[in-house]
Amino acid sequence: MLHFYLPTEIVMGAECVRGSAERLVKLGKRALIVTGRRSAKLCGALDDLTSALDGAGIEYTVWDRAEPNPTIASAYECAAAARESSADFIAAIGGGSPMDTAKAAALLAAQDVAPELLFSGSYGSDALPTVFIPTTSGTGSEVTQYSILTNDAAKTKTTLSSPVMFPKLALLDPKYTRGLPRKTAVNTAIDAFSHCVESFLNKKSDALCGMLALEGCRSFSEVYEKLASDEPDDDSLGKLQYISLLGGICIAQTGTAAAHAMGYSLTYFRHIDHGRANGLLLSGFIEHTAKTHESEVQTLLGAMGLGSVSKVGDMLNRLLGERESFTAAELEEYASIASKAKNLKNCLAEPTPDEILDIYKNSLL
Amino acid sequence: MLHFYLPTEIVMGAECVRGSAERLVKLGKRALIVTGRRSAKLCGALDDLTSALDGAGIEYTVWDRAEPNPTIASAYECAAAARESSADFIAAIGGGSPMDTAKAAALLAAQDVAPELLFSGSYGSDALPTVFIPTTSGTGSEVTQYSILTNDAAKTKTTLSSPVMFPKLALLDPKYTRGLPRKTAVNTAIDAFSHCVESFLNKKSDALCGMLALEGCRSFSEVYEKLASDEPDDDSLGKLQYISLLGGICIAQTGTAAAHAMGYSLTYFRHIDHGRANGLLLSGFIEHTAKTHESEVQTLLGAMGLGSVSKVGDMLNRLLGERESFTAAELEEYASIASKAKNLKNCLAEPTPDEILDIYKNSLL
Repeated sequence: MLHFYLPTEIVMGAECVRGSAERLVKLGKRALIVTGRRSAKLCGALDDLTSALDGAGIEYTVWDRAEPNPTIASAYECAAAARESSADFIAAIGGGSPMDTAKAAALLAAQDVAPELLFSGSYGSDALPTVFIPTTSGTGSEVTQYSILTNDAAKTKTTLSSPVMFPKLALLDPKYTRGLPRKTAVNTAIDAFSHCVESFLNKKSDALCGMLALEGCRSFSEVYEKLASDEPDDDSLGKLQYISLLGGICIAQTGTAAAHAMGYSLTYFRHIDHGRANGLLLSGFIEHTAKTHESEVQTLLGAMGLGSVSKVGDMLNRLLGERESFTAAELEEYASIASKAKNLKNCLAEPTPDEILDIYKNSLL
Repeated sequence: MLHFYLPTEIVMGAECVRGSAERLVKLGKRALIVTGRRSAKLCGALDDLTSALDGAGIEYTVWDRAEPNPTIASAYECAAAARESSADFIAAIGGGSPMDTAKAAALLAAQDVAPELLFSGSYGSDALPTVFIPTTSGTGSEVTQYSILTNDAAKTKTTLSSPVMFPKLALLDPKYTRGLPRKTAVNTAIDAFSHCVESFLNKKSDALCGMLALEGCRSFSEVYEKLASDEPDDDSLGKLQYISLLGGICIAQTGTAAAHAMGYSLTYFRHIDHGRANGLLLSGFIEHTAKTHESEVQTLLGAMGLGSVSKVGDMLNRLLGERESFTAAELEEYASIASKAKNLKNCLAEPTPDEILDIYKNSLL
């Protein structure tokens, strides 16, 4: 069986935001721009977007209150801002957090969903159209139907998902990632790589999506040396953005798998960056999968030109540097939470609760 | 620059039509089923579709008057049938011809477009939603925004194109292609292969679309021996359908190029099947491209495991068998028509009128 659905129009390249006035006009007459406090301005994306909106005669309000690891409350707050400003569409600039906030807000501005039903998946078919402009190369959120919010009730991050939340338009210009702090560049690249890996070693993977995931993995191994040793040059930034895009397209089809399910606890309890959290667990996840799905793992390694899973571990270790320390008790709590995650079912080799604890211990102790 | 837009939801696999009741419900309460007179019934697709519609409580009318190489008049006739039956959506079953008819009709049923403006590209944003069920593996029309109609005024086939014409849903089950006459199986496979080649050797190709096109070419060389020597088995039929799907996705991004532009005359004047017409010209088109774009052609040949363009010619010749004969005067007329085709501009190496005539002569005399 093959399934593919990606209704987002993707435009990637130099100055694509300023060049998109005609595309923006189709989305409406009033926009709410959703960003964090600073980076959208510093990287030039906000200027480019407002210039395109001005050129298209579209009015806009800026809501710059998106926060890292956005909460349910912030999604409702952003939706209220969209309603108050009578926005026809939402334009989000940023990394995963403004995009996650904006995507949930696009749904909540168009229909009333009670907070207790927010993760139910039972929504109507209305959402404001959205345009997403990523300023990091990691999340792939610009081409997915997911919004990931901090869920205090479940002590983890939980995913809202609906086909109506696919962005209408994704505008990707690698120049916005030029000034990223080194840690952010590395962590987001690991996030993108983990999307490709988790989508490939996934029950829902198929010929088309698998090919895209392998291309992402192959491209990651190509750009790896630049990422590990240097400030990436513009060519490398373009490749990293392409890997992020591929990863997003892939997880939109398959969902993520165990590394994400398990990483969320590291972020929730220890405030470890999302991409880094995945990276800490990723080679353990691949090792686990190889026990029962050797051939799929070999295909993945082949695409990367690597001879063994430990080589993936070596690559990640160099990027991750010194690891945080954890106690056995912490890992037991995380394992108990992660074993309830929906995306575990996506794994080619779905880990048991004991195996989850083993992966945590092998990776983090 | 990278651009990708493919809003069609794709489902491919055994019994996917009968399994799609939930997806069909989203399209409306009344359907017009568009087919040719016989093949949709013989291959079982019509039964599967009506069974899914019945299961979903959707009423339908069957319009089985789609003809090979559909005319402008037949598109209007089909649109009138959709209006008369108050169809909320159109479901097309067939090869390229019913799909081309249905796609134009979906536009013409939702808005008034005068025949003289039919190829203008200036349409409103309305079209009936469509679901396409291909019964051949060639056209890729189930995932494109194109409808190709016979245009007597221009003595060729002309393309209607609009993003609003993308099908909402493509349902691909290789079993419908089991009983295809051998000639049809071969010609449609060549058509699909030509889509991949012409999309790759295309100014509008980019990293993402180029990868898909190369995968189509690689898959064609894999399945080639079965296609050339046998009745393809079910596994091969699945591969051929996948190549057709990839070709459709690719030309939706880039458009076709010179082999298509030049092939239309062979179909218009000599009634040579569309896929065969492309096949007769394809290696000449690649040879022409190689003169100025050696590296792109080498990449294409590399994906197919071939050492030279002449090997592509050999593969095609075996499939094509004995060639039709043409006079120099005929080819001059065809060259004069083809040199006005819009899709020539897509060619990496855009041929001059003289070069078009040369390709015709080298290929057909």
